Amino acid sequence: MTIPWGALREEARSLDFADPLSRFREEFVFDDEGLLYFDGNSLGRLPKRTAALVGRAVREEWGARLVRGWNDGWVDAPRRVGDKLARLLGAGPGEVTVSDATSVNLFKLAVAALRARRGRHTIVTDALNFPSDLYVLEGAAALLEAGHRVVVVPSRDGIAIDAADLGAAISEDTALVSLSHVAYRSGFLHDLPAVTARAHAAGSLVLWDVSHSVGAVPVDLEASGADLAVGCTYKYLNGGPGAPAFLYVRRALQETLHNPIPGWFSRHEPFSFRDGYEPARDISRFLVGTPPILSLVAAEAGVDLALEAGVGPAREKTIALGEFLVRLWETVLEERGVTLRSPREAVRRGAHVSFGHPEGLAVDRALIEEMFVIPDFRPPDVIRFGLSPLTTRFSDLVEGVARFRRLLDEERWRR
Amino acid sequence: MTIPWGALREEARSLDFADPLSRFREEFVFDDEGLLYFDGNSLGRLPKRTAALVGRAVREEWGARLVRGWNDGWVDAPRRVGDKLARLLGAGPGEVTVSDATSVNLFKLAVAALRARRGRHTIVTDALNFPSDLYVLEGAAALLEAGHRVVVVPSRDGIAIDAADLGAAISEDTALVSLSHVAYRSGFLHDLPAVTARAHAAGSLVLWDVSHSVGAVPVDLEASGADLAVGCTYKYLNGGPGAPAFLYVRRALQETLHNPIPGWFSRHEPFSFRDGYEPARDISRFLVGTPPILSLVAAEAGVDLALEAGVGPAREKTIALGEFLVRLWETVLEERGVTLRSPREAVRRGAHVSFGHPEGLAVDRALIEEMFVIPDFRPPDVIRFGLSPLTTRFSDLVEGVARFRRLLDEERWRR
Repeated sequence: MTIPWGALREEARSLDFADPLSRFREEFVFDDEGLLYFDGNSLGRLPKRTAALVGRAVREEWGARLVRGWNDGWVDAPRRVGDKLARLLGAGPGEVTVSDATSVNLFKLAVAALRARRGRHTIVTDALNFPSDLYVLEGAAALLEAGHRVVVVPSRDGIAIDAADLGAAISEDTALVSLSHVAYRSGFLHDLPAVTARAHAAGSLVLWDVSHSVGAVPVDLEASGADLAVGCTYKYLNGGPGAPAFLYVRRALQETLHNPIPGWFSRHEPFSFRDGYEPARDISRFLVGTPPILSLVAAEAGVDLALEAGVGPAREKTIALGEFLVRLWETVLEERGVTLRSPREAVRRGAHVSFGHPEGLAVDRALIEEMFVIPDFRPPDVIRFGLSPLTTRFSDLVEGVARFRRLLDEERWRR
Repeated sequence: MTIPWGALREEARSLDFADPLSRFREEFVFDDEGLLYFDGNSLGRLPKRTAALVGRAVREEWGARLVRGWNDGWVDAPRRVGDKLARLLGAGPGEVTVSDATSVNLFKLAVAALRARRGRHTIVTDALNFPSDLYVLEGAAALLEAGHRVVVVPSRDGIAIDAADLGAAISEDTALVSLSHVAYRSGFLHDLPAVTARAHAAGSLVLWDVSHSVGAVPVDLEASGADLAVGCTYKYLNGGPGAPAFLYVRRALQETLHNPIPGWFSRHEPFSFRDGYEPARDISRFLVGTPPILSLVAAEAGVDLALEAGVGPAREKTIALGEFLVRLWETVLEERGVTLRSPREAVRRGAHVSFGHPEGLAVDRALIEEMFVIPDFRPPDVIRFGLSPLTTRFSDLVEGVARFRRLLDEERWRR
């Protein structure tokens, strides 16, 4: 079958031209002529403004103001950036703060939830969750010595979780349902409001890991009644390598949940240096230690860009990119032995599309090294294409799939 | 009494001239003509090289290499910087890693220690420990639900801890002794080898917070047989605001202690994304999530400078600075109602000297705002002078005390 490259390229150009977010590419550094980067869901690109902002924080804040920087604004940075993140998460002011790594936040909130639901012994999660989320949940369960059990709902096809299977796993003994909103491998998107409602009907709390959704997929924490959430800022938010993570605690729960790592910054009036812990009276009670200001400045720049773009347009674009990529797969890749390993329907998918190939790892490496296309490999055989709403073009998808085809036809992955 | 300013200034000039570390001032940014900064024990000054290194990490590593930066060296950064820190701590390669905030590390190691000493129910600490270290120890004790009790050894004078009092508190029921090596308020320096030996004699583990010693006071973790340590990099190590913290686990204990927050980076072969947690076979098992690379780059620059200076010379200089400052206090400040709130003997003191004044907070504020001298206030009435081995001059002390005297004589703190 002849592939209509001309028509596809023309269509991509039209889509790029009509894309209301296309101007955001100018906000990012593209030093790498010819590189096609589809791994913004692992580490987002560098915003141009970030280097200047970090440089200013180093020289003008730290260098010139020294310790006075804490009074100038550093102390409030976790909450300030948290309030910005809240607008991306459908949360209210004072419900989100920036703190620690995602796993540390998951630990804090999971332990807090389990202690708030004493007498219940089950944590429900699923097999598509990020492996270390499972490790942390197991760790939290083991720590409390109350005989908690982690129930892992299996996936029937390795791609999605059946809502009925998940619903059946949630019971009156469930203390916590903890899931990734978007599955890291397949891109499967949970129905967050429905799962939250199901958990609440059983009296359980719900904790969402939104690392793979924030900045690309609406989350609507408040409207759905979600209790808790955690996530990172280095994927679609372009916050930089190891940028600090965030956490959300629904306002109504903030006073009844207790941070198991009561640090300096989680105390009421931390600079009083008083003996005896008294938790802060707001979201700060879920902080721990001194926030990493330089990384936080970089994260804020990325969050600002996501806010400027808007969650609605970001979702519309990643859906359109995903649909276009699936069509390209049907047209070009499917007959070459590449399988689709993401949900077919856009509404059940986050902002990345995953493909399978029996020689997945070798193919991934050849894409990077020979074709200058960077996707992401996830064992055993999955090649993810992350679609960043602010930096990925429709034309990039045509060119990326064209290179992918050439690699397959020439069997370059065998070299 | 006439103050011999001329002679004091002359002596300070001689001491500065003879100081083998004086050349390190050129490595730091001093934009602030006239400012006397004595708060390097809260936030150290900005090394000149840091802005360039952070800028390079942003543009050349993140910006140009994108996700490939992880393979280029980011993944190894916590251990690489940890190995450098080990040389400042008297530890061996593979015994230190950079991770999280100090309180998170304290939590991880305290919980690990308590679980390794099941059957013992006491945590021994002292009243001079940093308040949030006590919060974290209380938090860890409460979490394990095994009836742990935190015993806080009081200070008889608010300045030091009596070795006999501490020794008497340690018993066969002690699971963990957890102390700050240098007390944040008074600068009191524990006899780390002696306390460690006393704890070991009772079968307890020992966890040292060396935040106020690393970079200024030798720690000698390995020689003393210390089990565990944590600390920060933003004080004498000049790592920047909220720079990542570190932790030390004696090699012989690494396999038997378990990280209660088993994250991605603490797993054996993290990029395998395998189900089921299997701890890393080295110090990495005490990591949690993705390390904050930009903050880590800044921390490494500061650690490098401390290594170039050497721990021995740093200690010699801070002792000499401390002795000189105490003499200045005797000559100038004592008769003006300022008390010494640090141990008098240099060997029992870390690298800061604390003073008391009934109007401490007002005096501290006036020093900063009217006299352009930045010490640090700690409630209820303590004014700390941090002596940074790489940036503080003897001449700064004479000038700082001269301004302090003027403030007192003119009662500027009453304004």
